[in-house]
Amino acid sequence: MPRTATGESSLARAIRILAAFTPDTPSLTVSEIARSAGLHTATASRLIAELTAHGLLERGPDRQVRTGVRLWELAVRASPTRSLREAALPYLEDVHAVVGHHAQLGVLDGDDVLFVERLTARHAVLNYSRIAGRLPLHISSSGHVLLAHGPPELQERILDGPLPRYSATTITDPRALRAALADTRRLGYALVEGHVHEDAAGVAVPVRDALNAVVAALSVIVPNDGRAPTYVPALLAAARGVGRSLATTRSPR
Amino acid sequence: MPRTATGESSLARAIRILAAFTPDTPSLTVSEIARSAGLHTATASRLIAELTAHGLLERGPDRQVRTGVRLWELAVRASPTRSLREAALPYLEDVHAVVGHHAQLGVLDGDDVLFVERLTARHAVLNYSRIAGRLPLHISSSGHVLLAHGPPELQERILDGPLPRYSATTITDPRALRAALADTRRLGYALVEGHVHEDAAGVAVPVRDALNAVVAALSVIVPNDGRAPTYVPALLAAARGVGRSLATTRSPR
Repeated sequence: MPRTATGESSLARAIRILAAFTPDTPSLTVSEIARSAGLHTATASRLIAELTAHGLLERGPDRQVRTGVRLWELAVRASPTRSLREAALPYLEDVHAVVGHHAQLGVLDGDDVLFVERLTARHAVLNYSRIAGRLPLHISSSGHVLLAHGPPELQERILDGPLPRYSATTITDPRALRAALADTRRLGYALVEGHVHEDAAGVAVPVRDALNAVVAALSVIVPNDGRAPTYVPALLAAARGVGRSLATTRSPR
Repeated sequence: MPRTATGESSLARAIRILAAFTPDTPSLTVSEIARSAGLHTATASRLIAELTAHGLLERGPDRQVRTGVRLWELAVRASPTRSLREAALPYLEDVHAVVGHHAQLGVLDGDDVLFVERLTARHAVLNYSRIAGRLPLHISSSGHVLLAHGPPELQERILDGPLPRYSATTITDPRALRAALADTRRLGYALVEGHVHEDAAGVAVPVRDALNAVVAALSVIVPNDGRAPTYVPALLAAARGVGRSLATTRSPR
């Protein structure tokens, strides 16, 4: 791909433009996009025009720019998380119906949990993770499950820190995190009470594919009232269902 | 963006590469991608390497290429359908729980219904539309709703045909389609029995935003046994709930 004097390709710049759009900034002006992507306004403007022509961005009547439905379609219809999400959704619905709070599905991506599906309680007590939202591995129950069963080199990198604090009870000591991961493997679930926010507890269990590899974490976020462990059996049963469903589909993730 | 001798930008070629991945072809070899995108293998290979470096594509151990989790994340986290999908999901779950078959949410995109959310019955009788799947407007109940309330110029273009046949009962006569659209407006719902497949019936109702504009269609796909109209009241109630929810969110779509 042709490169500019700075050695950066136009595709790389186009991707930086797409990355300017987040859940908190779903619509932006051209100059906001330029600033966020670190581009001159003229360069940003030219690339935005081309992305808009292809439907990857859209311009509203207010001249605000947002991501286009075509981008969503291209990304979702053959997504690597699609078969996992489709296998999990019916079981996630069951958990959601029984537990009555947030139920979600997360996968390991880099040093984070990336949430690929979430069902929200209509009168939600608490609301942290979102679809396509991320959380650090050390603060979330899903993160503990994915890290506990993740590659040893990832575990060492995370345990080497830093482990930023998010609430009064966030685990910031590597030894405490190592113990929590050992507990997660021994018990078969992760329980994280008040580490993201004092009022919320997370419970997560591993989802295993046909080869017994952990491919996702199934979790609920519930009030931090000491009753979180009572949801473990329902989560474990649902995770088995998801794994069975996955075994009958082509792609493991 | 720099253009090649053919006048096509690298970004345009990169987008053609992404478009090669569909629900039926979620993983492809480099030469399959080159063929589908109409590119020389060397050109395709270079662009695939750059897209992979940015995480928009991923290469499996089998050398097969698939779309990357990063593409999904960029597209989903600020998607224009996100607020609609989030407003609709709890009501879609209720409909799904009560009706027990496929419940889905579709928006108008070009000359198609694009399904942005769908809840599937675990032991599904029938399974046609998929998330990020499309159906022509004239054959689906969601399409009738979106077309009946769509721009007059779109209605004229679709009515001008052609209206391809999908089953023995597909509407292929423009006068019959015009009458069906009038019925849809008059009754407040669309009923399409056996037009996609003889064993399935679709029932759809409009979802309106705070300005009373139709922004989506909420529908169920049920067995074609004559009982489809009994689901209309549940759908209408759910669509009102979605509309109310939408009114409290920032972006109308």
